[in-house]
Amino acid sequence: MKILLKLMYDGYGFAGYQVQPSKITVQSAIQDAIEKVYGERYDVKGCSRTDAGVHALKYFVTFDTDKSIPYENIPYALNSVCDKRISFLGAYPADDSFHVRYDVEYKEYEYLFLWSKAPNPFYNNRCFHVKKKLTDDILSKMELACSCFVGKHDFAGFMSSGSDVTDTIREVYYCKIIADGNFVRLRIAADGFLYNMVRIIAGTVLDCGYKKIDANKIPEIIKSCNRDLAGSTLSPGGLYLKDVVFKSGKIKGM
Amino acid sequence: MKILLKLMYDGYGFAGYQVQPSKITVQSAIQDAIEKVYGERYDVKGCSRTDAGVHALKYFVTFDTDKSIPYENIPYALNSVCDKRISFLGAYPADDSFHVRYDVEYKEYEYLFLWSKAPNPFYNNRCFHVKKKLTDDILSKMELACSCFVGKHDFAGFMSSGSDVTDTIREVYYCKIIADGNFVRLRIAADGFLYNMVRIIAGTVLDCGYKKIDANKIPEIIKSCNRDLAGSTLSPGGLYLKDVVFKSGKIKGM
Repeated sequence: MKILLKLMYDGYGFAGYQVQPSKITVQSAIQDAIEKVYGERYDVKGCSRTDAGVHALKYFVTFDTDKSIPYENIPYALNSVCDKRISFLGAYPADDSFHVRYDVEYKEYEYLFLWSKAPNPFYNNRCFHVKKKLTDDILSKMELACSCFVGKHDFAGFMSSGSDVTDTIREVYYCKIIADGNFVRLRIAADGFLYNMVRIIAGTVLDCGYKKIDANKIPEIIKSCNRDLAGSTLSPGGLYLKDVVFKSGKIKGM
Repeated sequence: MKILLKLMYDGYGFAGYQVQPSKITVQSAIQDAIEKVYGERYDVKGCSRTDAGVHALKYFVTFDTDKSIPYENIPYALNSVCDKRISFLGAYPADDSFHVRYDVEYKEYEYLFLWSKAPNPFYNNRCFHVKKKLTDDILSKMELACSCFVGKHDFAGFMSSGSDVTDTIREVYYCKIIADGNFVRLRIAADGFLYNMVRIIAGTVLDCGYKKIDANKIPEIIKSCNRDLAGSTLSPGGLYLKDVVFKSGKIKGM
């Protein structure tokens, strides 16, 4: 029987989501916890391959087991034994045909900026710290830049090297700036994301705010498919996987 | 010349504020940073002795130096070399007669509760996690309990052993509950606090919410000066020094 787990995690200190030899990853920590609860080690599949230091406010994994633990007890049992940077929020039955990665309809990421003269220690590794105020003028340029990413584009210029992906066309459903006091949130939803795509978009959008890049040239830069024309890749600590929506009817009772 | 520094810190992992042999404390980390910037080691005096794991959203220290660095540069210089759990927010001139601890008029602490079925990993060691909803009924009992602490009382029953303080009378200016979604904040201001006083008050207030203690009996419990009648001492991670106000005219330009 296939079980879907909903969780969240603070990615700081993990070597990313995916299992790697002799490193502590989110996946290995989840597998450790499941092994402690079920007495057997299972492979878990995750909905997204987040990088080292990237966080998830919502994340899903599946695993198969023939052992029956009441669904409502599973999160409690896992939370009592798991690395405290991970928290299990729910457990649900899933069809055998359900695939936690291929059945995703869209995902939403947030990139978090925090502007203040001095850094806020409670946001170490949890935001991108900007020393100067993000003024209305800067924010409006950032908003203009964001709007250019919406739609179906070849995002090859917004992908770091090291990926074996060949189809670099993705559809961005929205990309917007939400200013909230000293916090500025870049929210972006798409049918899929390339390697480091959000961190490069966030760096490019910030560069547009600072006029290092002309926001009006973003459509051209996208079309060029040239990584060198886009902005820098911002640090992973500001990036949060915020929402994951599955194709309709695939999961019930969630 | 006496310099006043304004700072904040994430207390997790520090062995409290005060210097202790072979332990990393907030005070030792500040002294290390000042030594790196000034090239000399100075004793710093802090406004409060916070315990291991307690946080400060606002904190003040003073030190004396004969070296002159422009005030506006001091926080930047210190932040560039200091333990990242501490952030320096400002530097100000202080009179030689100013005492950062004895010249405090009042301090405000916040004790942070977070209720949710599963813990939130972004608040590990930064809140007291309550698994069940803090309903309006529970909150109203907590509010009633809080109101009983206001005024000038002998708080001997709300002090942990291990303190050499003999005058246990303190004046509480306000003590209130602020509900904010899943967060519940206990805010308390007083002319001074006894050892673990806020953490014991927070535990007692929560026990009143849960009807383990009758909120109407709090005045009696205070009068009894009996530690055994009060509630438990809650964990340090939920406690934040939130504000420190000095006697008027003591510090200018802050």
